[in-house]
Amino acid sequence: MPDLNRQWLLAKRPVGMIADDIFELRQTPVPEPADGEFLIRVTHLSFDPTQRGWMSRDGYVPAVPVGAVVRAIGAGRVVRSRHAGFKEGDLVQGSFGWQDYIVSNGTTDIMPVTKLEAGVAPEQALGIFGITGLTAYFGMTDVGNAKSGEVVVVSGAAGATGSVAVQIGKALGCTVIGIAGGPDKCRWLLQEARADAAIDYKRENVADRIRELAPKGVNVVFENVGGEILEASIQNIALRGRIVLCGGISSYNATDPNAMPGIRNYMMLTGRRARMEGFIILDYAPRYAEAIHALSKLIAEGKLKTATDLQQGFDNIPATLRRLFEGKNVGKQLLKLD
Amino acid sequence: MPDLNRQWLLAKRPVGMIADDIFELRQTPVPEPADGEFLIRVTHLSFDPTQRGWMSRDGYVPAVPVGAVVRAIGAGRVVRSRHAGFKEGDLVQGSFGWQDYIVSNGTTDIMPVTKLEAGVAPEQALGIFGITGLTAYFGMTDVGNAKSGEVVVVSGAAGATGSVAVQIGKALGCTVIGIAGGPDKCRWLLQEARADAAIDYKRENVADRIRELAPKGVNVVFENVGGEILEASIQNIALRGRIVLCGGISSYNATDPNAMPGIRNYMMLTGRRARMEGFIILDYAPRYAEAIHALSKLIAEGKLKTATDLQQGFDNIPATLRRLFEGKNVGKQLLKLD
Repeated sequence: MPDLNRQWLLAKRPVGMIADDIFELRQTPVPEPADGEFLIRVTHLSFDPTQRGWMSRDGYVPAVPVGAVVRAIGAGRVVRSRHAGFKEGDLVQGSFGWQDYIVSNGTTDIMPVTKLEAGVAPEQALGIFGITGLTAYFGMTDVGNAKSGEVVVVSGAAGATGSVAVQIGKALGCTVIGIAGGPDKCRWLLQEARADAAIDYKRENVADRIRELAPKGVNVVFENVGGEILEASIQNIALRGRIVLCGGISSYNATDPNAMPGIRNYMMLTGRRARMEGFIILDYAPRYAEAIHALSKLIAEGKLKTATDLQQGFDNIPATLRRLFEGKNVGKQLLKLD
Repeated sequence: MPDLNRQWLLAKRPVGMIADDIFELRQTPVPEPADGEFLIRVTHLSFDPTQRGWMSRDGYVPAVPVGAVVRAIGAGRVVRSRHAGFKEGDLVQGSFGWQDYIVSNGTTDIMPVTKLEAGVAPEQALGIFGITGLTAYFGMTDVGNAKSGEVVVVSGAAGATGSVAVQIGKALGCTVIGIAGGPDKCRWLLQEARADAAIDYKRENVADRIRELAPKGVNVVFENVGGEILEASIQNIALRGRIVLCGGISSYNATDPNAMPGIRNYMMLTGRRARMEGFIILDYAPRYAEAIHALSKLIAEGKLKTATDLQQGFDNIPATLRRLFEGKNVGKQLLKLD
């Protein structure tokens, strides 16, 4: 075991697109677990758009303090333990942060440490069975209440959460339209995720295409992007449609949020008796088991394919986070530590 | 009975603020009821912000055709009848339009003709027991689900619907903050409607004032205005808050809806697990009796005061509609025909 723990600290709050100079490398001794604690070797990190918010301001969880290790969900292995509930060799996940090692007493800053289910690889634990898959599941079934025969639009459809939302929609018997950027992502959506249609927002007029594909309107919108993409869906919302406000990646790196173009056509929600609703997956913790069971079943039936974009190496951590906002990832963005 | 029926026709679709030249006066003979029809002398007209939409485009009801009588809800008296269900002298309401007389077979373009309850004056029928009061009732209780102890913000709070929403909120046991323009309206809110606080949006920073008045956040927003007023409420929305999207009068006269500033902070709905939902009162027709019963009880108990702004005269009809958009009315805007 090396003697040093590499850590990426948040050196200052981001302004605009994430730049390398907001992070700072530190090497400290590997921490020693006290009585009732255990030491985890972090092996995999999850990259999620919501991390941009964590670095900026207090929100549904407190902001990462400047000078602290950057918050990130990760998976790892227990390498020393003085805790009755965890033993050496256990595979675990939690909010481990951008570092090689972390000591825990069973919890981390925003969630408990949990053991991976037997037979579940870290990539699956952080992806389809992590906040990604859980968000897609509860967003589609609970918040969106998508039902067989309805039309669903998913934006950011080739992303980690969107790609699962598309396939859950198909499994529920919906007609699913995915919106993504570029021909590769659109091809993936049609061929692998079996979306009924894919709209390339970089080349097509999204509002016009939705109207062509769903002349009777869209019943459920699973929104990951925001801005003009969301306006295009609102314009085509069906009577009593539900817009699931999962994310708005188009605005996360805005330098001045007040200078962002807002949603201009929100009053259409009144005439269409439609609603737009936000949710945070952490609230669903008591029901995670239900979702994991349902997702496992879909995987076993061949109805749910997962895509993972796996980067490598501690030094590549900041650049890997940027991939999300540059639209480079197809599926779940992960990184394996060396 | 005069021989002529005066009518205001929609000469062309409005662009921007309603101007006199979009209306055209016509005089035609008073129509004769055929078998199964009856003739109504219109005595009162209701003025509602939604009329601006009716004149512009198809929405939750079809647009008023250019060249047709301007659509408006009104009250009147049956003056001749060849219909078994209506007799001379009956007081009735329906979508009678801007005219002295209308012939009906029991229905009008967007709603049936109904008789006024015994003892209910036309001013009440069109106001508190009309779409105004019904909208406030179902918006607060059903869509907003306001509960005792919660904090409610009502925008356009001195308007016809807003002023009722404020008082329903108080009757439900909520803390109610009203937003209105000018000291007279704010005084009315505090003294007559018994709001807990009034914010004058023309003089005060609305977002800052809401934060001061409701440091734990706003549970229910009854929104009549939209734009920056709505953004101020979103900024202060409580966890699991409900925004009832009743109207957005600030944008109804926009020349180019796409040039309107949109709602920029909508992503706060995600972190706060909040929802924004539209509704149309016509959907609640099967439950109107429930609302009328509840509103009557509040009036009898002295818990619901209604304000009416009653204008006079056929020639003043177009100018009276403009009063709504100029913020001149306190309470329900009506006009009595000569």
